[in-house]
Amino acid sequence: MATHGQVITCKAAVAWEPNKPLVIEDVQVAPPQAGEVRVKILFTALCHTDAYTWSGKDPEGLFPCILGHEAAGIVESVGEGVTEVQPGDHVIPCYQAECKECKFCKSGKTNLCGKVRSATGVGVMMNDRKSRFSVNGKPIYHFMGTSTFSQYTVVHDVSVAKIDPTAPLNKVCLLGCGVPTGLGAVWNTAKVEAGSIVAIFGLGTVGLAVAEGAKAAGALRIIGIDIDPKKFDTAKNFGVTEFVNPKDHEKPIQQVLVDLTDGGVDYSFECIGNVSVMRAALECCHKGWGTSVIVGVAASGQEISTRPFQLVTGRVWKGTAFGGFKSRSQVPWLVEKYLKKEIKVDEYITHNLTLAEINRAFDLIHEGGCLRCVLDCQV
Amino acid sequence: MATHGQVITCKAAVAWEPNKPLVIEDVQVAPPQAGEVRVKILFTALCHTDAYTWSGKDPEGLFPCILGHEAAGIVESVGEGVTEVQPGDHVIPCYQAECKECKFCKSGKTNLCGKVRSATGVGVMMNDRKSRFSVNGKPIYHFMGTSTFSQYTVVHDVSVAKIDPTAPLNKVCLLGCGVPTGLGAVWNTAKVEAGSIVAIFGLGTVGLAVAEGAKAAGALRIIGIDIDPKKFDTAKNFGVTEFVNPKDHEKPIQQVLVDLTDGGVDYSFECIGNVSVMRAALECCHKGWGTSVIVGVAASGQEISTRPFQLVTGRVWKGTAFGGFKSRSQVPWLVEKYLKKEIKVDEYITHNLTLAEINRAFDLIHEGGCLRCVLDCQV
Ligand SMILES: NC(=O)c1ccc[n+]([C@@H]2O[C@H](COP(=O)([O-])OP(=O)(O)OC[C@H]3O[C@@H](n4cnc5c(N)ncnc54)[C@H](O)[C@@H]3O)[C@@H](O)[C@H]2O)c1
Ligand SMILES: NC(=O)c1ccc[n+]([C@@H]2O[C@H](COP(=O)([O-])OP(=O)(O)OC[C@H]3O[C@@H](n4cnc5c(N)ncnc54)[C@H](O)[C@@H]3O)[C@@H](O)[C@H]2O)c1
Ligand SMILES: [Zn+2]
Ligand SMILES: [Zn+2]
Ligand SMILES: [Zn+2]
Ligand SMILES: [Zn+2]
Repeated sequence: MATHGQVITCKAAVAWEPNKPLVIEDVQVAPPQAGEVRVKILFTALCHTDAYTWSGKDPEGLFPCILGHEAAGIVESVGEGVTEVQPGDHVIPCYQAECKECKFCKSGKTNLCGKVRSATGVGVMMNDRKSRFSVNGKPIYHFMGTSTFSQYTVVHDVSVAKIDPTAPLNKVCLLGCGVPTGLGAVWNTAKVEAGSIVAIFGLGTVGLAVAEGAKAAGALRIIGIDIDPKKFDTAKNFGVTEFVNPKDHEKPIQQVLVDLTDGGVDYSFECIGNVSVMRAALECCHKGWGTSVIVGVAASGQEISTRPFQLVTGRVWKGTAFGGFKSRSQVPWLVEKYLKKEIKVDEYITHNLTLAEINRAFDLIHEGGCLRCVLDCQV
Repeated sequence: MATHGQVITCKAAVAWEPNKPLVIEDVQVAPPQAGEVRVKILFTALCHTDAYTWSGKDPEGLFPCILGHEAAGIVESVGEGVTEVQPGDHVIPCYQAECKECKFCKSGKTNLCGKVRSATGVGVMMNDRKSRFSVNGKPIYHFMGTSTFSQYTVVHDVSVAKIDPTAPLNKVCLLGCGVPTGLGAVWNTAKVEAGSIVAIFGLGTVGLAVAEGAKAAGALRIIGIDIDPKKFDTAKNFGVTEFVNPKDHEKPIQQVLVDLTDGGVDYSFECIGNVSVMRAALECCHKGWGTSVIVGVAASGQEISTRPFQLVTGRVWKGTAFGGFKSRSQVPWLVEKYLKKEIKVDEYITHNLTLAEINRAFDLIHEGGCLRCVLDCQV
């Protein structure tokens, strides 16, 4: 390939400062070093973590950086020692790495690989602890080990899943974050059984994917809770059977749900990122066995609380990251499920824009009507 | 039997008022009604729940009452319809009932039977919602459905476990609360696997039983944490392999444990009832899979808290009541295990007194040297 081993100059949306519009820049993307993969990003979606870091509220956020972590592309070139992907492979970058070798990967108990975290957590690559991005010689930090708001990015080889090349990249890019998170919260973290009563707090992409996962698991009742009543019509298509708007009730929402379900739900999922809703989600669970899974990401410094009696009487409090899916092993399997029409993806895409229009896309995700906005990166 | 169908007058320790010495009174114990069993209590131990309610800090505590819930005795007579026990059977009263018929019992997911709770929670019997205890005509409330600080008590038939008559009642009375709670927290709630690293906060009877359970489960390291260094020698005999005194460290205790275990423990147990220790117990768990079980009972109104990130990164927060054991089915099995010398019981008994000396026994449980004090009720 002409670009192999060369610095590539391409367009990327750079976040120079927190809370300031991103700027489309000509960015220099260095070639991949040992154990690295350079990917041509074709499509990227936006997720709340991008918006959260961009806002400046994330104390670990580093600027300037290139955000983005829900995307799909094609391998352009690989560094020394990379064996599992090669140029031309269709891939989904994975912010949750999977090395198959570390204590975490080998535990069989978690998807939280520890291999590259010490680098991705501080916006650099493992090999030389430097960035592969620069603008006129000034380094730009990576983000979540993915940085997909760029026409080209460099990721660790443990952070890229090779997928079926027939899958439409403008759709399956969503399998990089929100949709697997919701499905996996149900299938891997909660392990919802047939006949269960499920409550879902927040009916955005993540909450809707929880509903879809719960429906597939055979849940009997799927109760959607949202303060935006417009969510209900969409939610029905994803399997939600009942809708509760906390604003319609004077009683605390946990009490409303306990009353509605003769003692509480079997499983609840918090898909908002609000610590008081997290408490309600735990407390609406049935005594003796109800399990609550925190999926939403709360702002830094916020804390959850409850009376310990809630746990002593049998409720279980858990959380999930990327739905507990092992990224490199299972994202390709999710892509297959999509191709076999066993899981929805298209239905979450409400908007399509281009990378150049990214600031409009950021505005959109704060609007009720938007689930996912997919950006075409190459136009 | 001479007493069958008659009111029995016997000695009982009555708590007339919170925080005032118990008074040994001549108490009238009415015959058992339908579904009830009158039990001659031979031995009772004291547990922290007795002391907590006695102190007046429990907002649900009712006075005057007869406390006590860790005991053993012999059935004196049974009410109409009682089929599973008969006069002469050796039994352990169970504050955690098991009816085998309610939603909870049939769920297969919990030991928290709901059958008689609406009565035991307010100090009366289900049948007529009255007490069977009185002093000169004045009713005295039941406590936890057991009220074992009495020579005779009346319990619901779902609240009594029939045990091997060869078991020494002055020992197996401990299988009514503390010891099963610790063992079950490990075996039923946490399901500790061989090779695990376990942390136990608080090395009283419950914490020591956790240690014993963890050792039986094949735990590799059992780290005992207590502010009383005198606990360590005893703790070794129950399986604790390492001892940490929070007072010896400047760092928060969760950090001390994370450092000591290369990332955190697999399982932790809070056996104190202190909400800040509950937080530490969760936060010393290993990212990705560490599970913390709350066993201690905190004072009313107190709350636990943590950052939700602790759960999103894979820690699990649980609790246990009576160690998850189904009382009528499993207490007899624990008695068998004791008779086969598979579990310790005698080793938890540090003091023996009589029912008449109960106020001394209450003083003792606040002293470091006391694990369990067993009272002989019939002298
Ligand atoms: N754990 C993970 O790995 C992971 C991965 C992806 C996203 N997330 C997090 O999941 C959360 C949801 O993501 P999303 O993309 O679906 O977000 P979203 O904003 O599209 O959806 C949130 C929904 O919650 C509703 N809502 C807000 N406040 C509410 C309240 N008090 N009560 C009831 N409903 C309320 C909103 O109306 C909206 O419909 C975010 O916090 C995101 O950061 C976590
Ligand atoms: N969940 C249940 O079903 C259940 C059943 C029985 C008992 N309990 C509860 O379990 C708890 C323990 O019972 P026990 O009989 O073993 O009590 P105990 O008082 O004998 O033991 C508590 C131990 O904790 C230690 N301790 C106190 N503060 C500490 C701190 N800050 N850090 C470290 N160690 C500390 C004490 O030195 C003592 O050794 C109590 O809260 C009791 O109410 C719960
Ligand atoms: Zn995301
Ligand atoms: Zn790994
Ligand atoms: Zn007890
Ligand atoms: Zn029951």
